[in-house]
Amino acid sequence: MDSKEISQAVIKRLPRYHRYLGELIEKGIERISSNELSTRMRVTASQIRQDLNNFGGFGQQGYGYNVKFLYSEMGKILGLDRQHNMIIIGSGNLGQALANYVAFEKKGFIIKGLFDINPRLEGLSVRGIQIMMIEELEDFIKENNIEIATLTIPKDKAGDMADMLVKYGIKAIWNFAHVDLQVPDDVVVENVHLSDSLMTLSYKLSCYEIENQKKM
Amino acid sequence: MDSKEISQAVIKRLPRYHRYLGELIEKGIERISSNELSTRMRVTASQIRQDLNNFGGFGQQGYGYNVKFLYSEMGKILGLDRQHNMIIIGSGNLGQALANYVAFEKKGFIIKGLFDINPRLEGLSVRGIQIMMIEELEDFIKENNIEIATLTIPKDKAGDMADMLVKYGIKAIWNFAHVDLQVPDDVVVENVHLSDSLMTLSYKLSCYEIENQKKM
Repeated sequence: MDSKEISQAVIKRLPRYHRYLGELIEKGIERISSNELSTRMRVTASQIRQDLNNFGGFGQQGYGYNVKFLYSEMGKILGLDRQHNMIIIGSGNLGQALANYVAFEKKGFIIKGLFDINPRLEGLSVRGIQIMMIEELEDFIKENNIEIATLTIPKDKAGDMADMLVKYGIKAIWNFAHVDLQVPDDVVVENVHLSDSLMTLSYKLSCYEIENQKKM
Repeated sequence: MDSKEISQAVIKRLPRYHRYLGELIEKGIERISSNELSTRMRVTASQIRQDLNNFGGFGQQGYGYNVKFLYSEMGKILGLDRQHNMIIIGSGNLGQALANYVAFEKKGFIIKGLFDINPRLEGLSVRGIQIMMIEELEDFIKENNIEIATLTIPKDKAGDMADMLVKYGIKAIWNFAHVDLQVPDDVVVENVHLSDSLMTLSYKLSCYEIENQKKM
């Protein structure tokens, strides 16, 4: 598997395949054809075959896909076959909401600590996870084998924090700050820009309104 | 402007243009060439020109782009030139975090009310926004001219809620529930699937690790 050859569009679809396969397992479905999977997921069967062929196929002519096997293989591709230790930097509403989200833990993403600069939050905890001060960050990352740092801090603080995290050895940043981070090539960033998402919704809404006006 | 002709990839980039232009305005920059904008945004200048040509161009040969004008035109395209009334359904951690996020209001997205099924939350408020019970939803939507409903509820409740919202006249759903909603064609949905995003990060991280192992 070489990450360079696989398009961003395919990568974005992988978690969705994994989610649908998980739902099939919950329903006790053991095998599925690409046509059936296609109907459920609302993508074409040929798209599914193409996507999965990027990783070596997994399907069997006349049988379809073995759901459990495909789910497990997809899990491996997504790095879900091992534990990822995480921290959350910024213990405001959003940071605390993420810390409370147990679904991440079920997928192997373990939130080991929360951090903040507000001394009033020091020593408090969310779902048993302690809120620590930024001064403790470096030691904590090294002692707890932290791979992923989640940034839920204001955008004007995010750049400096990212630099610090890279220096401390963090290899993956899950960025909720509303800014694009500049990091070295060997550090991966995944952005959740909530305002951008809301604007996309607003754009789609405006387009529908314009179309409806035309029809009237 | 016809939404049908513009690709999803372009649409996804629009809020990012808007954000960068807003930052330029804050810095007092009045005009910018597509080359300069390209360097800042890390997309090619020809990509920028192509993207903006979808909406009629805006650039002037030898002058570049007038930042304020382009920002304002992008705002119109994104539907930011008017107010959008929103509600949040699900007043747990994430719902409250979103209600506390004042940046949305600055862009014209006004959160008018929060809803929940937990009677213990009834009458409480977040940043002055009241938490109401689901029974009040229908009247509230109609009386307050609500366009956008944000779903921060568990996935097993999200489908029924979406059906209800559509019945009550909601035209846009900002969906944080970890499920793909089935809605009529004239209702727009924008998903924020946090688990999918975290898995994408994990996938990228795994790829880098595999590459690094190869180099060793």
